[in-house]
Amino acid sequence: MTALSPLAPACFPALPVLRGVRLASHACGVRYAGRTDLLLVALDPGSRVAGVFTRSLTASAPVDWCRAAIAQGSARLLLVNSGNANAFTGAAGVASVHRTVEAAAALIGCAPTEVTVSSTGTIGVRLPDEKITAALNEIQAKLSADAWEEAARAIMTTDTYPKGATRQAVIDGVTVTINGIAKGSGMIAPDMATMLSYVFTDADIAAPALQALLSEGVAGSFNAITVDSDTSTSDTLLLFATAQAGHPPISEATDPRLADFKAKLFDLLLDLAHQVVKDGEGASKFVSIRVTGAESDAAAHIIAMAIANSPLVKTAIAGEDANWGRIVMAVGKSGQKADRDRLTIQIGGVLVAEKGEAAEGYDETPVAAHMKGQTIEIAVDLALGAGQAQVWTCDLTHAYIDINGSYRT
Amino acid sequence: MTALSPLAPACFPALPVLRGVRLASHACGVRYAGRTDLLLVALDPGSRVAGVFTRSLTASAPVDWCRAAIAQGSARLLLVNSGNANAFTGAAGVASVHRTVEAAAALIGCAPTEVTVSSTGTIGVRLPDEKITAALNEIQAKLSADAWEEAARAIMTTDTYPKGATRQAVIDGVTVTINGIAKGSGMIAPDMATMLSYVFTDADIAAPALQALLSEGVAGSFNAITVDSDTSTSDTLLLFATAQAGHPPISEATDPRLADFKAKLFDLLLDLAHQVVKDGEGASKFVSIRVTGAESDAAAHIIAMAIANSPLVKTAIAGEDANWGRIVMAVGKSGQKADRDRLTIQIGGVLVAEKGEAAEGYDETPVAAHMKGQTIEIAVDLALGAGQAQVWTCDLTHAYIDINGSYRT
Repeated sequence: MTALSPLAPACFPALPVLRGVRLASHACGVRYAGRTDLLLVALDPGSRVAGVFTRSLTASAPVDWCRAAIAQGSARLLLVNSGNANAFTGAAGVASVHRTVEAAAALIGCAPTEVTVSSTGTIGVRLPDEKITAALNEIQAKLSADAWEEAARAIMTTDTYPKGATRQAVIDGVTVTINGIAKGSGMIAPDMATMLSYVFTDADIAAPALQALLSEGVAGSFNAITVDSDTSTSDTLLLFATAQAGHPPISEATDPRLADFKAKLFDLLLDLAHQVVKDGEGASKFVSIRVTGAESDAAAHIIAMAIANSPLVKTAIAGEDANWGRIVMAVGKSGQKADRDRLTIQIGGVLVAEKGEAAEGYDETPVAAHMKGQTIEIAVDLALGAGQAQVWTCDLTHAYIDINGSYRT
Repeated sequence: MTALSPLAPACFPALPVLRGVRLASHACGVRYAGRTDLLLVALDPGSRVAGVFTRSLTASAPVDWCRAAIAQGSARLLLVNSGNANAFTGAAGVASVHRTVEAAAALIGCAPTEVTVSSTGTIGVRLPDEKITAALNEIQAKLSADAWEEAARAIMTTDTYPKGATRQAVIDGVTVTINGIAKGSGMIAPDMATMLSYVFTDADIAAPALQALLSEGVAGSFNAITVDSDTSTSDTLLLFATAQAGHPPISEATDPRLADFKAKLFDLLLDLAHQVVKDGEGASKFVSIRVTGAESDAAAHIIAMAIANSPLVKTAIAGEDANWGRIVMAVGKSGQKADRDRLTIQIGGVLVAEKGEAAEGYDETPVAAHMKGQTIEIAVDLALGAGQAQVWTCDLTHAYIDINGSYRT
């Protein structure tokens, strides 16, 4: 329905086999015809899980389930459908989750709380969970260690390409693998349910430590991207660890032996988050916004997000217009401390404004050339303190209006 | 450049002569050619003033001036140019304001602080104040009591129609008049400087009481509208009172004799605010959002604004799609207390969702018909408390992208 994003990567990366993880996808007809819409991931006994979820107060039934279920720390199955978000579906939605989870747990004889589920698609429509439970035996028979790209495809909704990433890290001399997949055309499109990401590793790390790493890693990755400021009812990021790599078990997130793993995990999360922004609905440009010199890191993040979410900044970027006055406006509306006369703004590395006005002798030529590229770099320094943040977004184009104005018609 | 808004009123209202107020407009060539771009309003001695301004931390030099100048409570002149916002213009911008104000004060021999000034247009370009001061004698010679529509036209930027409103009120048995003009294509378009409104009355009300009335009145009018969530560096609303109506002077905003005046003033402010939204860039539909049952009025306002500013809600309205799932999403992301399972949503008076899911037997037909109209009514009840709020916005269309993506090219 929508053309491939011009910011799409050349290909899906080759994700290696990961000890303890098998995957399968299936077409069970929840909503879409002619494509897969169900993903099952089986994790060997002893696997652990951590997760972060949408902060929406109208979270979906599967999000409510996962948040509670993963508290015990172990996981055996992940089951995801696309086409229906099972959000704002009331008591019926909760019952659908329970039926699905119990049927899946019975497949392999695990506890229901060891089954994590996600649903992504339209809001407010009852989930035909009987189509999912009826397909469980068939999808289980297809489980294989080498179905990563198919897995990433099965969870797509308005995505124009499947998203995956892989890294290797060394823990105590042993090489471990981290594989991740994601879906989402930004944090937008909540009636199609938005951002889901699943990361898997064979590292032997205790669940509380996994949770600490994930909570820290999400701040600079998925929580630092925005397409249009609309937060989904279904955002879910789960990290599974099968503990089969063979290094000594690690129980604390602060263990120095995790330094390389942590760096590679954060890098993979950022890679997946960037892939989501680059598939933002209607995106034609990828935008990096770096704020320095703020009162605190939190203030810098709020200012960066005010710029990233400004429709006027985003439409100017779509129009390849180096309209820095709109960046000033966005800083001013953020509510965070700023001094108009100390602010400096750079676009594509060129100083465009300082001391409360256009930079002395400002020549727009190199900036105009930068605006014609696919990657736009905006840097704002407030000269007030040491707070800094970086966020990423895309531009706002006609295609966004087309996709979202006429989705259901 | 832009076609008349489909939501424009049939005509500019007939604003009557107002004792103590004379107006003139002039083409002084600040930026535009072939149209007026300067407004001078002369107020008789004894006139008072109150004002509210942008909360932006990067406010323009004229805003900084007015905020300080009106503290003494009296006013004799208002001078407004369009085409240049004199915002983010550093020390040069402050000097421009001082030269302009001093030249204007010298015209009639008043104190500089009795001169209020506004500038609206591009950000970051030095104001050619010499063009304004050179035109002062000529524009002063044109002052007349009957130039309201011309005044409203002189301050337009991307506006597609001039905005005005008038009311009569009775204070202690004496009829007084309130005239107001405004400009703004929403609170958007900050590089063209955005929302300005000037309200005039012949009522005899002390400046502190005027200020109290204005501060209260703005909450439910100009602070309850949004086009795209982008707050300007220049937003200015001034209320002038010439005190010539002949009723006994009133010094307290709480004086019961002001009941009718207050009601009419608030009604006029809302009228002007609605005219601004109806000229929102690219607007094709006028949207009212009413939130009830919130924890507090403040919470209700935040929730209503989260709905009004959601790009997904706005694009769905542009596409005439009764996509209520996006309203649920916006409530959820607002950060205010909400219980998914107690929420009810009405569109065009029809119950579409309740008890955490689509309403029993919901028939989309009448709602789909409502979505095809020009005025869209959304009502959300949270069933948590007595807090309520109403806000107004417009839809998000292709024309918004066109206007803002290619303005400077």
